[in-house]
Amino acid sequence: MYKHPNQNTHTIHFEPGGEIVYAPTGLLLSEVMQQAGLELNMPCGGQGRCGRCAVIARDGSKVRRRSTVRLSAEDLAAGYALACQTVVEGDAVLTIPPQEKIERRLVSDKTAAKITLPFTYNPDRQQPLRLFPLTLDPPSMADQTDDWSRLKRALSVVYGLANLTADLPTLCRLGTTLREHDWAVTAVIELDTWDRPNGPPRLVDLRKDEPPSGGRCGWQKDEDKRQKTEDQEEAHLNDSSFILHPSSFSLWGAAVDIGTTTVSLYLVDLLTGEVAAKAAEYNGQIKRGEDVISRIIYAGKNNGLGELQALVVGTINELIERASQRAKINPLEIYKMTVAGNSTMIHLLLGLPPASIRLEPFITTVNQPSSVRAVELGLNIHPQATVDCLPGVASYVGADITAGVVGSRMCTPPSIPLSGEAPPFVPPTGGERGGLTLFLDVGTNGEMVLGDGEWLISCACSAGPAFEGAGVQDGMRATAGAIEEVWINSETFEPTYRVIPQPKLEAQGRPTPPRGICGSGLISLLAEMFITDVIDKAGNLNVVPSSQRDEKRRRIRQGEHGPEYVVAWADETEHGRDIVITKVDIDNLRRAKGAIYAGYTVLAESVGVDLAAVERMLIGGAFGQYINVEKAVQIGLLPDLPWEKFHFLGNTALQGALLALLNRDYRAQVTEVAAKMTYLELSADNAFYEQFTSALFLPHTDINKFPTVAAILD
Amino acid sequence: MYKHPNQNTHTIHFEPGGEIVYAPTGLLLSEVMQQAGLELNMPCGGQGRCGRCAVIARDGSKVRRRSTVRLSAEDLAAGYALACQTVVEGDAVLTIPPQEKIERRLVSDKTAAKITLPFTYNPDRQQPLRLFPLTLDPPSMADQTDDWSRLKRALSVVYGLANLTADLPTLCRLGTTLREHDWAVTAVIELDTWDRPNGPPRLVDLRKDEPPSGGRCGWQKDEDKRQKTEDQEEAHLNDSSFILHPSSFSLWGAAVDIGTTTVSLYLVDLLTGEVAAKAAEYNGQIKRGEDVISRIIYAGKNNGLGELQALVVGTINELIERASQRAKINPLEIYKMTVAGNSTMIHLLLGLPPASIRLEPFITTVNQPSSVRAVELGLNIHPQATVDCLPGVASYVGADITAGVVGSRMCTPPSIPLSGEAPPFVPPTGGERGGLTLFLDVGTNGEMVLGDGEWLISCACSAGPAFEGAGVQDGMRATAGAIEEVWINSETFEPTYRVIPQPKLEAQGRPTPPRGICGSGLISLLAEMFITDVIDKAGNLNVVPSSQRDEKRRRIRQGEHGPEYVVAWADETEHGRDIVITKVDIDNLRRAKGAIYAGYTVLAESVGVDLAAVERMLIGGAFGQYINVEKAVQIGLLPDLPWEKFHFLGNTALQGALLALLNRDYRAQVTEVAAKMTYLELSADNAFYEQFTSALFLPHTDINKFPTVAAILD
Repeated sequence: MYKHPNQNTHTIHFEPGGEIVYAPTGLLLSEVMQQAGLELNMPCGGQGRCGRCAVIARDGSKVRRRSTVRLSAEDLAAGYALACQTVVEGDAVLTIPPQEKIERRLVSDKTAAKITLPFTYNPDRQQPLRLFPLTLDPPSMADQTDDWSRLKRALSVVYGLANLTADLPTLCRLGTTLREHDWAVTAVIELDTWDRPNGPPRLVDLRKDEPPSGGRCGWQKDEDKRQKTEDQEEAHLNDSSFILHPSSFSLWGAAVDIGTTTVSLYLVDLLTGEVAAKAAEYNGQIKRGEDVISRIIYAGKNNGLGELQALVVGTINELIERASQRAKINPLEIYKMTVAGNSTMIHLLLGLPPASIRLEPFITTVNQPSSVRAVELGLNIHPQATVDCLPGVASYVGADITAGVVGSRMCTPPSIPLSGEAPPFVPPTGGERGGLTLFLDVGTNGEMVLGDGEWLISCACSAGPAFEGAGVQDGMRATAGAIEEVWINSETFEPTYRVIPQPKLEAQGRPTPPRGICGSGLISLLAEMFITDVIDKAGNLNVVPSSQRDEKRRRIRQGEHGPEYVVAWADETEHGRDIVITKVDIDNLRRAKGAIYAGYTVLAESVGVDLAAVERMLIGGAFGQYINVEKAVQIGLLPDLPWEKFHFLGNTALQGALLALLNRDYRAQVTEVAAKMTYLELSADNAFYEQFTSALFLPHTDINKFPTVAAILD
Repeated sequence: MYKHPNQNTHTIHFEPGGEIVYAPTGLLLSEVMQQAGLELNMPCGGQGRCGRCAVIARDGSKVRRRSTVRLSAEDLAAGYALACQTVVEGDAVLTIPPQEKIERRLVSDKTAAKITLPFTYNPDRQQPLRLFPLTLDPPSMADQTDDWSRLKRALSVVYGLANLTADLPTLCRLGTTLREHDWAVTAVIELDTWDRPNGPPRLVDLRKDEPPSGGRCGWQKDEDKRQKTEDQEEAHLNDSSFILHPSSFSLWGAAVDIGTTTVSLYLVDLLTGEVAAKAAEYNGQIKRGEDVISRIIYAGKNNGLGELQALVVGTINELIERASQRAKINPLEIYKMTVAGNSTMIHLLLGLPPASIRLEPFITTVNQPSSVRAVELGLNIHPQATVDCLPGVASYVGADITAGVVGSRMCTPPSIPLSGEAPPFVPPTGGERGGLTLFLDVGTNGEMVLGDGEWLISCACSAGPAFEGAGVQDGMRATAGAIEEVWINSETFEPTYRVIPQPKLEAQGRPTPPRGICGSGLISLLAEMFITDVIDKAGNLNVVPSSQRDEKRRRIRQGEHGPEYVVAWADETEHGRDIVITKVDIDNLRRAKGAIYAGYTVLAESVGVDLAAVERMLIGGAFGQYINVEKAVQIGLLPDLPWEKFHFLGNTALQGALLALLNRDYRAQVTEVAAKMTYLELSADNAFYEQFTSALFLPHTDINKFPTVAAILD
């Protein structure tokens, strides 16, 4: 904030809060508001597209509107200006309309979600963090060895550990810790990381663990072992019976998936492999752009990248705090974090400028980042903890997809069940054939992978955010008040719908009035409208003049933006306005589903396989968890396969991050998947446009591709 | 600073500056002054010993003096209080007497001091930093390789370089740099460090170098090479003819010696091995303690360690800036720094708590620290530059001594000259025998090494700062106004002296009046007094009552602190007071020289060699550069060896740091020296105390050990 005005700065008053900021000529109002500490939503990332950052400039205010495309003549007359597009040219008085709060999804952070691992967990063989209890000989005038050499000597003699390294901050605490704890300590050591598979081991922390009740038995065992020779000890390094894990010991890790919309975290007990707590929250970057493109643009602004990095780190820190409180642990005992996310999210987390991801030819800075330390990113876990961002394949097929492939166990043979009780031991697949599988992750982008484990081919198609409720007049996210399922009476065209309940109302036994329609509701609605002939296969609504309307036609009308269908009348809704779906909305949804269909069709064509040959259809992402498969097939979003082939797996990226955290074979598998996966760039592919055009119809130009839908229509 | 007073804070006014600070009860005045931004000298590190931080509390001030040992009854009556020992208990008005400015030595930062290396410099074979000019194929829709993989691919194809790594901040700049410079860049790569002798190579910087005049020939050559196969390229990695060093390219390094008193720096052109600029400055930590013990105590105070680290980093940054300006280079082009210094200085630079260095059994945190990055320490060179702190041996034999052994070329055979023209190639010594050599570095501590290259034994003895002018009534540092040499007429006892001139007075042809006596002056004075019988061999001054004084005795008198000899009368001096040496001073000097003599005598005894067998006596440190050998032998500070055996080598630690920076064989030699050097702990050694007692006489109890002195006395 400019504390002292001078002749080059202007005075900007804000209403209703009364804030005053001094700003130079040319500063954007959005920047002035940030200086004033005023919250501002910019879902489009400050491109002037969304119109959500509009403020009212009082008459006489000296501001210049560089763009007014989102403002009507009435808006302009009323003084409206887009904060992201308007610059200061003199003194001004600005009124901030009540900001639309970013909705907070009712994420239920359930404790200790029991996750079944596809392998029997052995912490000392599968993951690289170890606890080494030690009692050192204190220094004396006869043995003036420095602290660091003394520690290394003990680890070598007792555990056969060689070539230990440490970061400077760990060394800085070394002498004090050893003396405070009277030379009896536990060394937390990371033996290797993916990018240093043969070590050297690194001292991450040195701490005093309370011995388990019953005295110093934890140390006792360690002292017994001192009698052995070094050669004998060497063999014990991988012997789990030797490394003690008394219950008072603890060793924690975290698996994180950074979604564009939602960030999810598992807090994992590395001694047992159990997920002790789960937490999820909207990505704090949402207020600076709802999709990756908006965020990339925002990152290109002055300090935008730093701000976006701080926002996602803030979200992760919030999740860490929440999960740690629930599991009653100290977050500083989290010594490793594995992170999945699309390439833009990984770039923003690491502070890598993402600009070239957006621009042809769509290049990332790095697909396979090296491990970094938590302190480098500002994450509130142990500062020297390794943060391992999983590898991606391309700008639009990121670590969320490679982790998803591993998390979905796409490469495991179909004979092994994807869920349920773990078999005694499933070898990580290596070259094993998984059967022809299509993996689909639908969000703002639709990413998909086809293959059998031996080979994998992937693509991404920009489906747009229609299925996330954006770009649709009454669309909204899947939160309380959203219509999530619709049925239409084919005789009367009257709809019935189900609304995601508001917990308070539900507890009182009262229905929740709808506020809009979420993704699964839109799919359901589009399918019902098509099946009941409310719309034709091109998505056209047959509007007749009101004078000619019968009971059946009263919900189809000419609205402000063209033909529309009324899903809920104003008197049923929360906000007292009709909830409708317009022809424009329908076209957006058709394009979105057409892009996804075209994506996997082109993938299959490119390798010469028939979609019908797909043995398993794995669907990842929150989206997949709520949609009705039948409806999704009816609109041509999903291929017309037998229902038993569909598997909805939830957050496969987070599952993959968990497996990579707990098991270095699975971690290697993510890298292997990233390396072997072929990326098909659709924006340079004519076949894609042909398929896309054909797929704009409901369910498709060629109804023979959807035999079960054809049967219903007959 | 406390901005808002409340009932728990008190108002402290400072005179004469008028500063006001609000401080809580119990805060030390020294801390209050720091909050007020007031400069404060605490040479003893805040222990209440030196009395230099005295301030005057006006009547009525509510302060409590916790210690008054340095204050007389008159001082107390006048309101004096030691800032480091007095706490706030209420409002106070404090007057700060003019602070004794820390003297600024007339360090002449000579440009381009021509240093002769003991080897023919070959930058591509001997040191690990390389410049790799590259022109990358820009990305396209047909080649969407990520930036980092693209760079690695080009380095592999063109130069055969594999396994490249990079720190996160380097990756963060990668995409922008490549695009800004249109894919033609120079990669600055560090191939290895001492703690990773086999790499992997690390990208330190990526930059655009202007091609030399005459067009793109720099890149041209690189493009020609692309035609070769990878196998062929591999062989070129160590071929200096291949790696271009046009004059517009630059690659800089710095060698630093952190002395307790003075920090010195060489700015080195890594392409030629030449020292382009030299700079030296007082260690900024001096104001928080003049010796290592005071600094260790200060480091134990709240944030003392952080403050001392910041002070020495600030000093180094000042030297970097000064040297860079002189050499007209950008300090961000300094890609490596090698640092020598005693163990306490290295701990404070790295932020390692030094407390255990001071307390028996005298343990360092680490003698051989790993490389760190400049950004970790806040050094203003390239943030990803490696900072290599050389290894030490023990708490009181640090990297200054190991570097000094290498820098003094103690391990090279006596047949090879220590200075002058470099022979064609001197192999780094390895196991070569250097002839029995005694290496001596005298500062506050006297550190010494005896050996022949095959074996080395070292010790440190606390000589005290007498030879640095401290602990002596009229002692001072070797700066303008210091008496640096004294001659006494044995008939009249009248002295003649030489004063280090004040440049301004010297330019006017006027003599500089003396202010005190520096170390070399004290040695000279003590020797002259002994040789001329002003004092006897126990240092006693024969004082007679003034009535009995003849001309000869008028300079020997009973002073305030016992017997003293007047070196300069008040009318000759700058401050108008007599300059004297007292019996107390003489005893301090005797103890200092006795400790050093005892040190090397015990070293020799411990390995069963005779001091007379020493072939070379190498003397490092600024101290050695100015003393008169004959006088030093006469008082028994240096052993009575033929003059031709003495070599005064200046700052051998800095020389060693330079050799380690430029040549990995010399760097390995420092580690080898540290590993092979035996450390003799004198504080646990009875032989040392016996020798020390015998060495308190002038020159020694046993005059036969000093035959040339015996001859003079006869």
